[in-house]
Amino acid sequence: MFLLHRHCNRNRSSLLLCLLHHQHFSTLSSSPPQPLDVPLSQPTYMIWSSNTSLGKTLVSTGLSSSFLFSSTSSFQSKKFLYLKPIQTGFPSDSDSRFLFNKLSSFSLRRQPPLSLSLSDSVIYSSVSAAKSVLSDKFRAPATEFGSGMYDLNLREVNENSGRGEAVSQLVCQTLFAWEEAVSPHLAAERESGVVGDSEVLEMLSKCLREGLESDRERMEVLCVVETAGGVASPGPSGSLQCDLYRRVIVCFYCLCLIFKNTLAFSLMGIKLMAKKKLEVICHGLTAHVSGTIDRPFRLPGILVGDGRLGGISGTISAYESLKLRGYDVIAVVLEDHGLVNEVPLMSYLRNRVPVLVLPPIPQDPSNDLMEWFDESHDIFNSLKDIMLSAYTERIQRLHDMTKKAGEIFWWPFTQHGLVPEETVTVIDSRCGENFSVYKERDNESITQQFDACASWWTQGPDATLQTELARDMGYTAARFGHVMFPENVYEPALECAELLLDGVGKGWASRAYFSDNGSTAIEIALKMAFRKFSCDHGILLDFLKNNTAERVIKLKVLALKGSYHGDTLGAMEAQAPSAYTSFLQQPWYTGRGLFLDPPTVFMCNSKWDLSLPEWLHAKIVNLQDMIIHGSGGMHMIDPLFQRILVNECRNHKIPVIFDEVFTGFWRLGAETTADILGCVPDIACFAKLLTGGVIPLAVTLATDAVFDSFVGDSKLKALLHGHSYSAHAMGCAAAAKSMKWFKDPQTNINIISGQKFLRELWDLELVQQISSHPAVRRVVALGTVCALELQAEGCNSGYGSLYASSLLQKLREDGVYMRPLGNVIYLMCGPCTSPEICRQLLVKLYRRLEDFNRVEEKVRVG
Amino acid sequence: MFLLHRHCNRNRSSLLLCLLHHQHFSTLSSSPPQPLDVPLSQPTYMIWSSNTSLGKTLVSTGLSSSFLFSSTSSFQSKKFLYLKPIQTGFPSDSDSRFLFNKLSSFSLRRQPPLSLSLSDSVIYSSVSAAKSVLSDKFRAPATEFGSGMYDLNLREVNENSGRGEAVSQLVCQTLFAWEEAVSPHLAAERESGVVGDSEVLEMLSKCLREGLESDRERMEVLCVVETAGGVASPGPSGSLQCDLYRRVIVCFYCLCLIFKNTLAFSLMGIKLMAKKKLEVICHGLTAHVSGTIDRPFRLPGILVGDGRLGGISGTISAYESLKLRGYDVIAVVLEDHGLVNEVPLMSYLRNRVPVLVLPPIPQDPSNDLMEWFDESHDIFNSLKDIMLSAYTERIQRLHDMTKKAGEIFWWPFTQHGLVPEETVTVIDSRCGENFSVYKERDNESITQQFDACASWWTQGPDATLQTELARDMGYTAARFGHVMFPENVYEPALECAELLLDGVGKGWASRAYFSDNGSTAIEIALKMAFRKFSCDHGILLDFLKNNTAERVIKLKVLALKGSYHGDTLGAMEAQAPSAYTSFLQQPWYTGRGLFLDPPTVFMCNSKWDLSLPEWLHAKIVNLQDMIIHGSGGMHMIDPLFQRILVNECRNHKIPVIFDEVFTGFWRLGAETTADILGCVPDIACFAKLLTGGVIPLAVTLATDAVFDSFVGDSKLKALLHGHSYSAHAMGCAAAAKSMKWFKDPQTNINIISGQKFLRELWDLELVQQISSHPAVRRVVALGTVCALELQAEGCNSGYGSLYASSLLQKLREDGVYMRPLGNVIYLMCGPCTSPEICRQLLVKLYRRLEDFNRVEEKVRVG
Repeated sequence: MFLLHRHCNRNRSSLLLCLLHHQHFSTLSSSPPQPLDVPLSQPTYMIWSSNTSLGKTLVSTGLSSSFLFSSTSSFQSKKFLYLKPIQTGFPSDSDSRFLFNKLSSFSLRRQPPLSLSLSDSVIYSSVSAAKSVLSDKFRAPATEFGSGMYDLNLREVNENSGRGEAVSQLVCQTLFAWEEAVSPHLAAERESGVVGDSEVLEMLSKCLREGLESDRERMEVLCVVETAGGVASPGPSGSLQCDLYRRVIVCFYCLCLIFKNTLAFSLMGIKLMAKKKLEVICHGLTAHVSGTIDRPFRLPGILVGDGRLGGISGTISAYESLKLRGYDVIAVVLEDHGLVNEVPLMSYLRNRVPVLVLPPIPQDPSNDLMEWFDESHDIFNSLKDIMLSAYTERIQRLHDMTKKAGEIFWWPFTQHGLVPEETVTVIDSRCGENFSVYKERDNESITQQFDACASWWTQGPDATLQTELARDMGYTAARFGHVMFPENVYEPALECAELLLDGVGKGWASRAYFSDNGSTAIEIALKMAFRKFSCDHGILLDFLKNNTAERVIKLKVLALKGSYHGDTLGAMEAQAPSAYTSFLQQPWYTGRGLFLDPPTVFMCNSKWDLSLPEWLHAKIVNLQDMIIHGSGGMHMIDPLFQRILVNECRNHKIPVIFDEVFTGFWRLGAETTADILGCVPDIACFAKLLTGGVIPLAVTLATDAVFDSFVGDSKLKALLHGHSYSAHAMGCAAAAKSMKWFKDPQTNINIISGQKFLRELWDLELVQQISSHPAVRRVVALGTVCALELQAEGCNSGYGSLYASSLLQKLREDGVYMRPLGNVIYLMCGPCTSPEICRQLLVKLYRRLEDFNRVEEKVRVG
Repeated sequence: MFLLHRHCNRNRSSLLLCLLHHQHFSTLSSSPPQPLDVPLSQPTYMIWSSNTSLGKTLVSTGLSSSFLFSSTSSFQSKKFLYLKPIQTGFPSDSDSRFLFNKLSSFSLRRQPPLSLSLSDSVIYSSVSAAKSVLSDKFRAPATEFGSGMYDLNLREVNENSGRGEAVSQLVCQTLFAWEEAVSPHLAAERESGVVGDSEVLEMLSKCLREGLESDRERMEVLCVVETAGGVASPGPSGSLQCDLYRRVIVCFYCLCLIFKNTLAFSLMGIKLMAKKKLEVICHGLTAHVSGTIDRPFRLPGILVGDGRLGGISGTISAYESLKLRGYDVIAVVLEDHGLVNEVPLMSYLRNRVPVLVLPPIPQDPSNDLMEWFDESHDIFNSLKDIMLSAYTERIQRLHDMTKKAGEIFWWPFTQHGLVPEETVTVIDSRCGENFSVYKERDNESITQQFDACASWWTQGPDATLQTELARDMGYTAARFGHVMFPENVYEPALECAELLLDGVGKGWASRAYFSDNGSTAIEIALKMAFRKFSCDHGILLDFLKNNTAERVIKLKVLALKGSYHGDTLGAMEAQAPSAYTSFLQQPWYTGRGLFLDPPTVFMCNSKWDLSLPEWLHAKIVNLQDMIIHGSGGMHMIDPLFQRILVNECRNHKIPVIFDEVFTGFWRLGAETTADILGCVPDIACFAKLLTGGVIPLAVTLATDAVFDSFVGDSKLKALLHGHSYSAHAMGCAAAAKSMKWFKDPQTNINIISGQKFLRELWDLELVQQISSHPAVRRVVALGTVCALELQAEGCNSGYGSLYASSLLQKLREDGVYMRPLGNVIYLMCGPCTSPEICRQLLVKLYRRLEDFNRVEEKVRVG
């Protein structure tokens, strides 16, 4: 009745070879990887534990028995899928075999016997584990095995047919196994069988798809994925398991230089352990591109806690480690040791997560546990019911979210009349640069989309920084909550201000004025500039002398046409009339400025071009009595023009404001655009990427001279503008961490030591190809931004146009989330995004442009 | 040479009696408790551990030896203070005695012997532990002991005089001991020896003060406080230790009703375990006041990790639990088990926290460990050096912060010329409503101040909610980071919107429009109101028909004089001229409204009074073509007047905006002021307390009718106003948690089931007394706010006045942090603050008013 299969027996490459494979794929092939879907069609849970040996496998076994042997509801038959991605101590230990054996016994004991088909398979193992399995049965020569992991494909089957009922199934799978009974990272290192995180998750994803999708019409399925050791025990690559299962990391490194260096090559083969190490080694050897793709992979879980003395602490800490990585824990299970550990646990969890207590587990190894499982029957039944109903609730909520959102949200910049329910994106989570998106159509699943809006121009962290920021946010909220700023000092605010003045403000700024967002930073900057100008031109003195309320002086700004500095009225007054300032939007807008049409730079037909506005030839502008206002946006203003304008203003004692809300912190490839323009302002505004893109915070930096114009002996002369959350601790902590992270070559692969600019992210050849495409009018690629204007006429062009919608819908199917600005579309990444990912985005965009053009051609012809 | 003392032997009350004691104090005595200082004069560290039995005491022992036996620097002698607040398994286990014994042996072994004085004392123990200690020696009759903790005061001394050098000291103290070797909460329950968190920390604080302060001039001191079990193991009250040592909780309950109920009384005596439980029991029996004072108590720590299989996970999780509570961990120490656990730990910690590895600890109980300590000598030396230099760095940083802040911060609303360095407050942390403030003068220490500014009107959480929010912030940052809002939906945003519409928007609002702060929420509200008004009055149709850019229609708002709606220009245009809008501050301000002088309500000489402005008698206002604008601030506007105004506007189809940025979410005692006014708006703005006061977020709620005026087939008709972080996940998660927390009687002691208003927080009698004080002009006490205007004339009155400064400086010495609005001062608490704390604040304020008045009298007379 028991069958032992051994399928193919080919050697599998080590991580190093995998890396080469990825590298090969990344430079030669133009097929970007497909989004990795996590099926949602059946309830699937991780089984976590706060320590080793607390009975995860007993819980899985109890669950499988409870699920398979409970009376069927509407379904004909059932399937329990048990996946054990990482197993050490194999073959003497095998959790999947334990479950398989126990269920085999259970099913035989049952009266009437259940018609059950059972299987247990082990897919890959280390060479030494494979030897130890196979030498007994096959006496295969040792030379058959190379290094790295072995394609074991061991399979045991037990067809336990009962009476003619429909056949239920137990499918147990161990994905990767090692021989030594130590932590997977050690076993992997010692047995030269290192497996990358991406390989674990890709294999897991494959097993999930195959296991869950095949019979979903006629079968009720419950799936558990059992982790190894504790929640933060390292996996085979050295990544902590709670990090490993949160995301897929696909590493690719340019190893060409390493190829030539055989010493390094073999060194890596031996030493390779943690991703971190690899990065360091690679970094030392080659200046070539390296990076990771992080994709979210977040399953809800059960935590097996610790009922022993000291176990409350470990259980709570493990729970917190999972929460700190964005996991949901739906139940805690622990063994009774007579210490009623469940009472403080329930109190801690405020009864929001159920805590279930299992009877004491017999310690005698000869005990077959049958009695214990009988005793635990009700507990496992409850646990199973909790899992099934949590699944139903989750699916229902995901399903309802688009409708509810459409009913109660009022999205900014959105014509609700034009947003059908099915186009609303349900974001289940994000990891690094990627959204996890609920996909209802076809097979219900969670799929990935690269957030090419950089979550609306704010986004910076890769997955590693996101995890660090999460911990920092927890720490800062616990340590400070929020504390008011004026006349106080606390560590995050001070560190943030120090880093700002030593970073983007270096060489000119002396003071940091915090606020909440770009608009408020701009309004504050305007107030500063007005005061400075008034001081420098004797207006203030006049005002104070005459103490007059008459506002005879009309101060205006000098700003650039097409510029945009935020949505509050003050910020709007400093921008030229546009769709945003019309009577429809803001009846109070007057536009208090002189708005210059600047020359812009762009790429068209593979060549860089410069637009020259007419006035630049025609007239001379009198800059007196005006304030210059820097600009950003998707038009790249000629830097030379900007520098000359700044110099001219300085000559006329007109304070210069740089609006770096969008452009600052590497958005355009430099930490500050002062480095691009080659000149510095008197005042500059920062927001968005300042906090790494996780939390609102803005800052207006100023020179000592600007600050001095507010100093005096009266409070009324001080700058009386502020917001409750000025310099709030969490924002400042996020900013401090992100500023350091982005500029450190140890943490940001795009930083080259000693250089002021990020490495080139957008493949020049591809950008040129796109700029020559007939559907494209112009392209601008700089730093983390690649924007393109589509050829469009009449109502198809401009901000209100919906012209790009169909193109962007197609790109979402490719796993790229973009948002149009009328007929302008853009790809935006973070300062740490690898050039390879950018290249993949460009390839996907180019392909869809081809399709788009064909359709548009047809429309034009037809 | 060994002495055994036994001092007094009085029975000590159980927790229940302590509670009664507190209760007594809280209603009858008018002496508020003194702030609890944590001395900073000497390095003091917590010793944490990720599990039991990992060698915390060995680490303490090695440290003490390394510190005491190292060559002295500039100091004559040294003192190592070892505190063990919680000991179970006593007397057979006593960590302080272990350390005492080991050091006794070490000092004898030493050549030349060190002149060392050693002592070990145990202050309180459970009765059964005391019996077990004392019955041997004293054969004391069992009847001598009552229930509760026993004042054991056991003391062992070893005067180990060496050659005539100055005497160094080892002082070991166990604060509370229980007999059973189980978790402290269990031991305390089983031995009827429950000790409250506040008692543990007050005793600890006392021991620290006595141990650190006495010899600080002539001695170098190092102090460690060793915890029991793992970081999250429960203490005797059931509170997790990582929570217990973070804050002092002083419980006080009104037990008068319970007194009459002997059944409940005895029930409590037996069942009393966790604070939570007590609250539930109390809550069920009495509607009287109960609550806690939370005060920060945050020492840096060493984490003793786990070198065993599975230990990486436990160590990392324990570290994360500590970070999640705002603790700093300066080093991790673990025992070598041959598994190189330190490698993944260092990788996880990114080398920012050192990881030290101790040699394997001999398991044989007969081993005296002398050899092991010799082997570990260098490790402990390094650890000691890390601790001493981290201390020096910390003190230096705290010392420098005020100066640095003065140099690089630009505080809002602050005349920097008037802020001397010594008045700047260095906030080391906050816990619940209290700041931890660095005090440099006298003895360097960390002291507590109640944040009576409610961190500038935003603050809400008590310490428990703060811990929950910290975990939620970590979770949300890990799960979502930030994801852009338009056309998307994600759980925190949806839940937040649902709660808003079912809470403050209930009965009228249908849509939630998110932004960043009160100002932006107001600007958005104005845009909504303009559009709605334009639709209702045919202006929009005219505009669209003629498609004219001419702005012939001048829209104005109708608002209240003295109102304040934020600092951005749009929000300012809707307020009457004031110091904030002068040419000095905002040259673009024009003030586009009709500003009504409203009648206000206040208390004076113990009576409520109403001010009636002249115009109310004189003229009739034409409300046509205007928009009403609600107001807040420290003037309480007559609710009847407001309701009539709202009705009048509605009759004229003028949209009504409620500015609830300050007043919303229980600030004035109701979740929304709609409940106070008895009418609803068309649009309302919320911010500040919306997130519980930890992170910026704002929302503008609107009716369906308002929303509909933006719906159409063109994007240009949509509301084109937004901010990058609109509905950011962390803000929405904080808001969802806080909204639920504040309104739930289970979590907010001030909520009475079925009632719309918070219980009265400000003692009426005291408020009346203050309102009758000669230094006071008027008082307004409502909800969480108690504001008073000081009698002041000429330049002493108004916003620019510094009149209140000296009064507020004195209050800071009493542990109350306030900030003036000119000659108006206020006390502000959170929705969960207990009335007893408010009463203490009033008492402190009243006392200082007396002093203040005496001084002012002298000035007037002199």
